[in-house]
Amino acid sequence: MSDLVSMSLEDVHGLTTRILLAHGVSQEQTRAIANTVTNAERDDCKSHGLFRVPGYVKSVVSGKVDCSAVPEIRDLAPGVIQVDGKHGFSPLALEMGRAPLVERARSQGIAALAIINAHHFAALWPEVEPLAEEGLAAFAFVDSFSYVAPAGGTKPLYGTNPIAFAWPRENHPPLVFDQATSASARGEIQIHLRDGKPLPQGWAIGPDGQPTTDPETALAGAQLPFGGYKGAALSLMVELLAGALVGDVFSFEATARDNQDGGPPEGGELIIAIDPSRCVASGKQTGQLARAEALFAQVLDQDGTRLPSDRRYQARLRTPTEGITIPTSLHETLQQLIGTGHP
Amino acid sequence: MSDLVSMSLEDVHGLTTRILLAHGVSQEQTRAIANTVTNAERDDCKSHGLFRVPGYVKSVVSGKVDCSAVPEIRDLAPGVIQVDGKHGFSPLALEMGRAPLVERARSQGIAALAIINAHHFAALWPEVEPLAEEGLAAFAFVDSFSYVAPAGGTKPLYGTNPIAFAWPRENHPPLVFDQATSASARGEIQIHLRDGKPLPQGWAIGPDGQPTTDPETALAGAQLPFGGYKGAALSLMVELLAGALVGDVFSFEATARDNQDGGPPEGGELIIAIDPSRCVASGKQTGQLARAEALFAQVLDQDGTRLPSDRRYQARLRTPTEGITIPTSLHETLQQLIGTGHP
Repeated sequence: MSDLVSMSLEDVHGLTTRILLAHGVSQEQTRAIANTVTNAERDDCKSHGLFRVPGYVKSVVSGKVDCSAVPEIRDLAPGVIQVDGKHGFSPLALEMGRAPLVERARSQGIAALAIINAHHFAALWPEVEPLAEEGLAAFAFVDSFSYVAPAGGTKPLYGTNPIAFAWPRENHPPLVFDQATSASARGEIQIHLRDGKPLPQGWAIGPDGQPTTDPETALAGAQLPFGGYKGAALSLMVELLAGALVGDVFSFEATARDNQDGGPPEGGELIIAIDPSRCVASGKQTGQLARAEALFAQVLDQDGTRLPSDRRYQARLRTPTEGITIPTSLHETLQQLIGTGHP
Repeated sequence: MSDLVSMSLEDVHGLTTRILLAHGVSQEQTRAIANTVTNAERDDCKSHGLFRVPGYVKSVVSGKVDCSAVPEIRDLAPGVIQVDGKHGFSPLALEMGRAPLVERARSQGIAALAIINAHHFAALWPEVEPLAEEGLAAFAFVDSFSYVAPAGGTKPLYGTNPIAFAWPRENHPPLVFDQATSASARGEIQIHLRDGKPLPQGWAIGPDGQPTTDPETALAGAQLPFGGYKGAALSLMVELLAGALVGDVFSFEATARDNQDGGPPEGGELIIAIDPSRCVASGKQTGQLARAEALFAQVLDQDGTRLPSDRRYQARLRTPTEGITIPTSLHETLQQLIGTGHP
């Protein structure tokens, strides 16, 4: 295991912070990104942890992202808050929108947060888990770059377009899922390419529109939605919600205007929060969360089942004391990034 | 084709109306159901058209449904309307909740309609399509009976739990999809059983938890979610939204309390409507729907693609003049149901 470097979560936060500050990212943007990266490592979501830091840096170096941007909050309707990311990274925009969204969900029963002009490079569960910790049910939708073919088609059009959902639990962290509407993440295909392994069937088609298990052919062709036409319909829905509805771009437009620096696309995002206590008549609120626990017990009563997000929560119990590991090669890259900064 | 009977859409509406009134269903409930059944036949959704009428009747005859119920509207929050179906059928409850939901979506930006204590026996697109015709984006979620195994499990727990979504279009009927989170509808397995045909792989497992293509074994076992664990997560989400959130039952509870009369389960439903014009800053509303058309054009520019709901809209152009057909056996059953009524 000499090709792995051990780090504490404090190390993760500190290293991310040093790298971003060294590249001129504002204190506030840096803090929000470092929290997001650290939380991903804490939950063993390696593809959204330190692995992403070089991409954040690339998009700063290329000038694509405004790393001094101060997001602006706009009150669009009693139930709709907009945060304009002002061409910065999304974690700070998300953080600033959270409190007003919670307040509106409680006062209105349901509310939406529309994030625009932000570069999203993280997982989607950080959008919804904190809302469920406030006792709210929550959805999130974000589009990305054109990677996925529409139902019946053969050319990339949709993003991998994840959907996240969270449900509040008493005496447990929230139930959360965060899943791409594509059959696989983009990064999983890249990892198969790196490791010289064939892809599972159903992940991708080549430029000729035929199914392929070759990673290189897949990357030149198109990814497939999960679950056939049903997954494709959900991906189309995400395009409409995170693109047209909030007044930002579709994945194919994000691809067209991107500078190909390897960093995140700029686009929109929709988050919806619902207060369960406002969805039943007065005096009937008790028991909604307890009843959900009865459903979860029915799920877990069956052999072989687990609840979404359980793996993340298991990692979360472990990593604050045991720390995490990253490949030595990534650690070296990150060390070099401190040096290439212009503090 | 002598085993088919031709009918006009007026015939469909008239026959449904006569049968329901003959069984004592109230004028208002009858009108709403007849509209729903006729719209399904109009759109060639045979599984939710006249095929359902015997089931509606069974649940009246058994006393499970209160066919004189007058739904009650409650204002739960600025963004949340509840309609209590009062143990009647859902079409009237849905119809009564629609105008207040539209009004709230426009005034608040986003609003929810929670339907409880209603027997849902129809497709889910009727929930969202009329909202999109009012210029709103809309979601709907409803649970049903326990048919589907959770991810990793082998026993029925979730309903087939459809999700519907609609997006408003200028100069076109709305883009709509309505899809079960199970790999197949329950009725599709029953049709394979009737026709003596094996099921496609991936639809079901037997009571032993092993994959099966035998319809009878499948009906005794469990249906599978579409798209593996991702579809199962969506099905779990629908249980939480249409069950716990709105204060009604989960599919397994609906199954436990049902009288097995062959009619619909009683339960809850969640509908969310969003006004796109309230999701962007003032003065930036123009172009949201036009931009969506640009996305649809990109989809349709690829050979082999179509938009969700196109097949329904093609049928809708045809059936008002050409009429529809139903099997002679169903027509005979329906004729008999006029006679067995107690007007």
